[in-house]
Amino acid sequence: MPIALEATTLSDAAFVVRPLPEAVFRCGALAETPRRARQLGGRRVLLVTDPGVVAAGLAERLRALLVADGLDVAVFSGVEANPTLSNVTSGSAAAGDPDGLVIVALGGGSSMDCAKAIALDAVNDGPIRDYCIAASLGETGVIDPASAAPRRQPTNALPLIAIPTTSGTASETNGAGVLTDESENRKIFISNPLTRPAVSLLDPELTLGLPPYPTATCGMDALTHAIEAFTSNRVTPYSDAIALQAIRLVGQWLPAAVDDGNDLEARAQLLLGSHLAGVAFATAGLGMCHALGHPLSAVLHQAHGQTLTTMLPHVMGFNLPERTNRYAAVADALGAADATADNDTNAHAAIAAVRALAERVGIARSITEMGGSSDHLPELVRQAMSDVSMLTNPRPASSDEVRALYLAAL
Amino acid sequence: MPIALEATTLSDAAFVVRPLPEAVFRCGALAETPRRARQLGGRRVLLVTDPGVVAAGLAERLRALLVADGLDVAVFSGVEANPTLSNVTSGSAAAGDPDGLVIVALGGGSSMDCAKAIALDAVNDGPIRDYCIAASLGETGVIDPASAAPRRQPTNALPLIAIPTTSGTASETNGAGVLTDESENRKIFISNPLTRPAVSLLDPELTLGLPPYPTATCGMDALTHAIEAFTSNRVTPYSDAIALQAIRLVGQWLPAAVDDGNDLEARAQLLLGSHLAGVAFATAGLGMCHALGHPLSAVLHQAHGQTLTTMLPHVMGFNLPERTNRYAAVADALGAADATADNDTNAHAAIAAVRALAERVGIARSITEMGGSSDHLPELVRQAMSDVSMLTNPRPASSDEVRALYLAAL
Repeated sequence: MPIALEATTLSDAAFVVRPLPEAVFRCGALAETPRRARQLGGRRVLLVTDPGVVAAGLAERLRALLVADGLDVAVFSGVEANPTLSNVTSGSAAAGDPDGLVIVALGGGSSMDCAKAIALDAVNDGPIRDYCIAASLGETGVIDPASAAPRRQPTNALPLIAIPTTSGTASETNGAGVLTDESENRKIFISNPLTRPAVSLLDPELTLGLPPYPTATCGMDALTHAIEAFTSNRVTPYSDAIALQAIRLVGQWLPAAVDDGNDLEARAQLLLGSHLAGVAFATAGLGMCHALGHPLSAVLHQAHGQTLTTMLPHVMGFNLPERTNRYAAVADALGAADATADNDTNAHAAIAAVRALAERVGIARSITEMGGSSDHLPELVRQAMSDVSMLTNPRPASSDEVRALYLAAL
Repeated sequence: MPIALEATTLSDAAFVVRPLPEAVFRCGALAETPRRARQLGGRRVLLVTDPGVVAAGLAERLRALLVADGLDVAVFSGVEANPTLSNVTSGSAAAGDPDGLVIVALGGGSSMDCAKAIALDAVNDGPIRDYCIAASLGETGVIDPASAAPRRQPTNALPLIAIPTTSGTASETNGAGVLTDESENRKIFISNPLTRPAVSLLDPELTLGLPPYPTATCGMDALTHAIEAFTSNRVTPYSDAIALQAIRLVGQWLPAAVDDGNDLEARAQLLLGSHLAGVAFATAGLGMCHALGHPLSAVLHQAHGQTLTTMLPHVMGFNLPERTNRYAAVADALGAADATADNDTNAHAAIAAVRALAERVGIARSITEMGGSSDHLPELVRQAMSDVSMLTNPRPASSDEVRALYLAAL
C-alpha cells in the first residue's frame, strides 16, 4: 500500500503558484540560445559564467554559437563558488550599455544567482546591496518577517536566459539568488519576479563529466529542496506531487551519476529532478536545513550542497514529530519504506535513507570534517536564526535548539 | 506496493514546459480582480461571461467590485454553452476601444475560451476564423500535422484574467480555446501563448452551488484531461506527477461535490484538481477521448464533459494494450487497484472505476441517450479523424476503429 497522507484541507488554503520560466528540456537545447536571445529583444549578450565552465570549454562553445548568429557577446567569467557582491559589480561593468542586452547565465547556481543580480544591477540606481534581503532578528529572538524585504524595490531587470550545467540549485526555476556580502561574511538574498529567467534551457549533455564531488553535493541540494518543500508549513497538493517526483528521481539516479560522470540517462534524470524540486519549493518554500546550511557555507566556505547534506538528517529528526506521515512518504519515494511498518518507523527509515545516500555518494561529513569547531557555533546560530528559510520550517526552533542541531552535526 | 511504472527514458526526451499563468488559490480571490486588472495596465475592463453566471449574481458582484475601484466596465454576457464565432464578434464589438482594456473571463470553459478569442479578435485584422485551427485529413486518412496551424498568426492580444466558476476545462491554465464554427457545425481551436491568461484567480466559493449535472460533467472533463495527459504519447515525469495528483483529487472529491453543491471542501479540492489536470495536459497533450468527444458535442449539442464521459471507457479499452502499466497506476490513484493483482487486471480495474464513477455521479449515458443514432456515425468519424487530439493518442486509430468505438458507445 502507498503511504497514506492525510488530505490537505483546501477550503481554508491560500497560496500563489508563481509563473515559471518556459523550460526546454532536450539534449542539444544549448543551440536554441541565439534564437531565444533574439526573441527577448537581444542584439547583445552578456554571458555570465565561472572559471570551471570556461575550463570545460562550454563557455567558448556558447560564445561561438552566439557570435555565429551575429550577436555581440561580452563574457564575464569571474563568478566565484559563493558569488559575492563584488562579482556582481564586476559583471555589471562588463555588461556595458544595457540597451538591447540579454543576460545568459551558463553554469551552476553561482553563475545563475550572480547573473540575476547583474540583471538588476545593470538597470537600477544605487548599490546592488540595497536590492538584497538581509533578514534580522526581532525582539523575541526569532526572525522579523518585516525585515525580509530589501531596502529598495527594483523597477526593472534585463531579460535572462538560464542554462544550468549542474543539477542542484534549480536557480533556473525562480527569481531568487543567494549572494555573499563580503563586508559581513554572511549570505544575503535577492528574490524578485523581475529576475526570473524568461527561458531555461535544460540540456543534459552540459552536465556530463561533472566530477563526483560536485555531482553529489548538487544532487543532495536538489534532494533537500524536494524534502523541505514536501514538509514545509506551506505545502499544497500541487507542490506535493512535484516534490515527491523529484525525491524519486534524485534518490534513484544520483548514485549512478556519481559513479559514472558520462551516464547521460542518469544526468538527464537528475537535471529534471533538480528542476522539479525547484518548481516545488517555488510554491511551498524551504525549511530549516537551508537556514542551517547557509551559515556553514558562509563561515566555512563549503559547497552549499555539502552543508545541507551535513545538516539534513539532524533537521529531519527535529521536524519528525510534526511531519511523521510525510517523512514516511519520503521513505516510500526513496524506496526505503516497509509496507508492513507504521508511519513513525518509516519516517525514521527516511532519515536513515538520507544518511545512507549521503554515504553512498561519498559526502557524509561532519562540521568538524568541514573545518568547523565549537568556536564557530555562536556565529552559526546567530546567522541561522535570521535566515528567511526559518519562516517556512514546519516546527519553530529556538536558538538553543538550533545550537543543539549544530552540536549533533559537529 | 505502489504500482511500479517503468522509468521514462529522458536522455532522448524532448519537451517544453510552457509558462503558466500566475495562479492565486483562495476563497475570496475574486476580490483581487481590480488590483490585478490595474497591474496589467487596465483602465477599462470587458467582463466576458454567460447567462448562468449572470443569473447566479456573480457577474454583477464582480462588476460592482471593478466599478468601486474606479474601473470602467463593459459586460458581454452572451457566451453560449459551446461558444460560436458569432459570440466572439459580438464580444469584440462590446469591447470597443482596446486601449487600456483588460479582458476578464468569469465562468466555465465557454466563457474563458470565448474571452481568449475576443482578446485576439479585438486587436488583430480580419475575421477571427483566420486565427483558428481547423485540422484536415491528409491523403493517408490521418490528420495532416501541417494543417494544425491557423491561416494567420496573431501579432498581439489583450491581457486576460481568468476566473473559473466551474472545475473542469482548466481553460484558465492555457492559451487554448474551443469554438464552434456555425457555418460548418464543427469545433475549431485557438491555441496561442498570447491568449494565455496573465493571472488565474481560483476562488472555490465561486464554484459553490453549481447543480449536480454540470458539476459531474465538468469533473469528468477534468478526470479525462488527467487520464489522457498521463497516457499520451508525450508524457514526462513532470506531467505524470501532476496528472496522477489530479486523478486522485477528482476521483476522491467529485461524488461529494455532486451530492452537496455547498460542500466547500469538495469544491476547493475539485477546483485545484481541475487546474492540475490542465497543467499536466499543457505539457503532455490529450488523446483520442477528446478527439471523439468534440464531434459529439458539435453534432448533438451535448456538454463537453458528458461526451467525454460517454467515450472514456471505450477509448481506454482501445488504448489499454499500449498503456497497461499506466492504467494500473490510474486504478491506484482512483483507489481501485488490487495490490495482489497484475497490471493487466488493474488496468481493467481503472476502466471499471471510471465507469463506476460516471454512474455514481449520474452521467453514464450512451450516444443514443444523448440523442444520437447510427445515422450520425459517418459525420462523427469524419470530424474525429481530423481532431488535433488524435496526434497525441498513444495508439493510432483508423477510421474503422474510431467507428467501432462510437458503435460500442451507441
